[in-house]
Amino acid sequence: MARTPIAGPADAAGLRRSNLALVLGRLREGARSRAVVAAETGLNKATVSSLVAELLSRGLVAEAPISDVRGIGRPGQPVRLVPDRVAGIGVEIGLERLAGAVVGLDGSVLTETSIPLVTTALEPAEVFDRLAGLTTELIEGVERDGGQAAGIAVAVPGLVDVDAGRLALAPNLGWAEVALVEEVRRRLGRPDLRVLLENDANLAAVAEHAIGHARGAQDLVYLTGEVGVGGGVILGGHLVRGAAGYTGEVGHMPIGSDHLCGCGRVGCWETQVGLAAVLEATADADDPVRDRSRDLDSRLAELQGRAESGEPRTLAGLEQIGRDLGLGASILVNLVNPAVIVLGGYFAVLGKHMIETARAELRSRVIAPDAGRCRLELSTLGFSASILGGAQLALTTVLQDPTLVPHLDQTSAVGTSV
Amino acid sequence: MARTPIAGPADAAGLRRSNLALVLGRLREGARSRAVVAAETGLNKATVSSLVAELLSRGLVAEAPISDVRGIGRPGQPVRLVPDRVAGIGVEIGLERLAGAVVGLDGSVLTETSIPLVTTALEPAEVFDRLAGLTTELIEGVERDGGQAAGIAVAVPGLVDVDAGRLALAPNLGWAEVALVEEVRRRLGRPDLRVLLENDANLAAVAEHAIGHARGAQDLVYLTGEVGVGGGVILGGHLVRGAAGYTGEVGHMPIGSDHLCGCGRVGCWETQVGLAAVLEATADADDPVRDRSRDLDSRLAELQGRAESGEPRTLAGLEQIGRDLGLGASILVNLVNPAVIVLGGYFAVLGKHMIETARAELRSRVIAPDAGRCRLELSTLGFSASILGGAQLALTTVLQDPTLVPHLDQTSAVGTSV
Repeated sequence: MARTPIAGPADAAGLRRSNLALVLGRLREGARSRAVVAAETGLNKATVSSLVAELLSRGLVAEAPISDVRGIGRPGQPVRLVPDRVAGIGVEIGLERLAGAVVGLDGSVLTETSIPLVTTALEPAEVFDRLAGLTTELIEGVERDGGQAAGIAVAVPGLVDVDAGRLALAPNLGWAEVALVEEVRRRLGRPDLRVLLENDANLAAVAEHAIGHARGAQDLVYLTGEVGVGGGVILGGHLVRGAAGYTGEVGHMPIGSDHLCGCGRVGCWETQVGLAAVLEATADADDPVRDRSRDLDSRLAELQGRAESGEPRTLAGLEQIGRDLGLGASILVNLVNPAVIVLGGYFAVLGKHMIETARAELRSRVIAPDAGRCRLELSTLGFSASILGGAQLALTTVLQDPTLVPHLDQTSAVGTSV
Repeated sequence: MARTPIAGPADAAGLRRSNLALVLGRLREGARSRAVVAAETGLNKATVSSLVAELLSRGLVAEAPISDVRGIGRPGQPVRLVPDRVAGIGVEIGLERLAGAVVGLDGSVLTETSIPLVTTALEPAEVFDRLAGLTTELIEGVERDGGQAAGIAVAVPGLVDVDAGRLALAPNLGWAEVALVEEVRRRLGRPDLRVLLENDANLAAVAEHAIGHARGAQDLVYLTGEVGVGGGVILGGHLVRGAAGYTGEVGHMPIGSDHLCGCGRVGCWETQVGLAAVLEATADADDPVRDRSRDLDSRLAELQGRAESGEPRTLAGLEQIGRDLGLGASILVNLVNPAVIVLGGYFAVLGKHMIETARAELRSRVIAPDAGRCRLELSTLGFSASILGGAQLALTTVLQDPTLVPHLDQTSAVGTSV
């Protein structure tokens, strides 16, 4: 049956864990009194008091000043999250950099860092060494501030077998069949910490869902415009991973012309809307913005400047890309009808000059009335989306089961009680 | 967060309902003793006994002969489902017929019926009258046998606003903005019965998931090959409805040539693989199989006969359609990576001669290794898939909350306790 997956039975301990998670989730929306939490959740006040007492004991929440809460009537003593008691860590292997972020329990970004590194020019082992070094620094930073790491999520630009922690294929990195979680875990020397591996666009979708444009939307698609065009799909509030974990490979939809794609096929959508396509559409072959030895950010900035100043060739090229972008986006809307499609990567940088054309094309191609009520928006998270989403995902274990965090008078790491 | 949607609190009554549903779900897999149910669910034996007692009291299960259960050791007294205590009803408005099915609690098909009716030639009100008549007969049949209807699901070939019970657009019927649930409810005169409206391909996907080729698969896509090509998507065991309910509109993916589609656009996939395309690809304009005044089943049977006898024109045409079918299917695999794509409608009738080509094309176009481990299969449910899926869906309310069925000593209808 579509709506009755077989689940394990609910038991008393599971019920308490789920109610602890529910209370923690409410406090994530802001400080509030126990009475407000009770009203919002439908739990009775005695239960809420007991749950809050346990969260206090685990250091996840603290009593807050009454002034922290707005409202009418005589307020109760409010409770607030302790943002840095537990933190999620997201790190990323990009084509030209390593990056990392630490996100607190309340969703606040505590640290963000990156190292320029042309990963494609190095042996994989050297990349893992450098990534482990960066990750260790982030973990030590959290612990120095008296917090604990909830876990680590590693973002990669490729197809991931999440359950096995294995990178199956990353064409642009030139890697295949890498046991990446194992490589990272071994180098960290921290068997107490959970390490996850995910596709970068999937994690960016998680970030958009948690803190970006799509906050509150249960159905969204994130599209990243880089050398390749990847997608992350969240439906019903859950990241779609499919049967084998290989979802969101939108860049290879066969809707393009006869260009040869990096994957060896012809007609892939990313040959129409990827980074190479936008450069080709907006500039001649000898134009400096097409000089691959130059830094990408500065070349995009140059293009952006030309568009701002109304340079016709640039604007015409971006309009053409916008049309192809809307065409491909229409497939996503026809198929899974997201509430919002968020455009990241270079799409976000140059999107201002493409998005109206893309929206018009989307509207004309989608079969549902009013384009299925789908919004097309530019990401505001920039190239940090994947690491922020990874950190959010790493926090999820604790948000779902706060009992993984030890009581304050115990010293074991998060998750060792599992 | 992707994995912590805010849910209501679990309470004692909710816990019992969920455990009743869990026990009922196990018994749906076959008769078994209370001890076996306890072992399978992790619930303790006293709890299982109490839950089974309630299900007995509501008439949903009965004690079974010990011989019904195979196994080793001294068997306990087994319990079995009562298949006809509660039944789901699925009805369908097709382009050329009305149809209906009654499915028992154990998934067995109790009744199946259809009436030839060229619905496009009638006023909508007349179609509703006829549909209500057919539905009433099915309800009365269930009640005559001492059972109760769990609810009714109506399948339509169009875009549905499920929450509003409204058909937004059905291009092939020529209907738009019809408050269909209201129209049917009014004519049934049974305010106690829940009436649902769903897209036909969505319901077919539910049937494939429950009893067809995709049984057990948590991620699947159903494709129906008719005048249009529709899709139903189930991910993580749940029907994907998207933000506005308009999902699975695969027929209008812009991957075709310059043919004009019924929707007014050009290049839609259904102009390459829909019914008109297969007839055009396999037969000349004056061939009797293209005579639209003839019955479709007999024309398809004729084509099937030609293919069986190795007629080159027919085989070449089907191979071409197979290639285009695989091309479009590759988008679905790249995007949501289902474990299986089930081909229904005419695809199932003629599929034997297309499927190998389609599989080869799929394999060559999908970016993930081993085509994302996705199987491409022909439906065995034929044109009944939507009504069977509708009946399954109608049963879902009871499977999720068995307390909706009154105790045997009460006489109120299912659901009135809500």
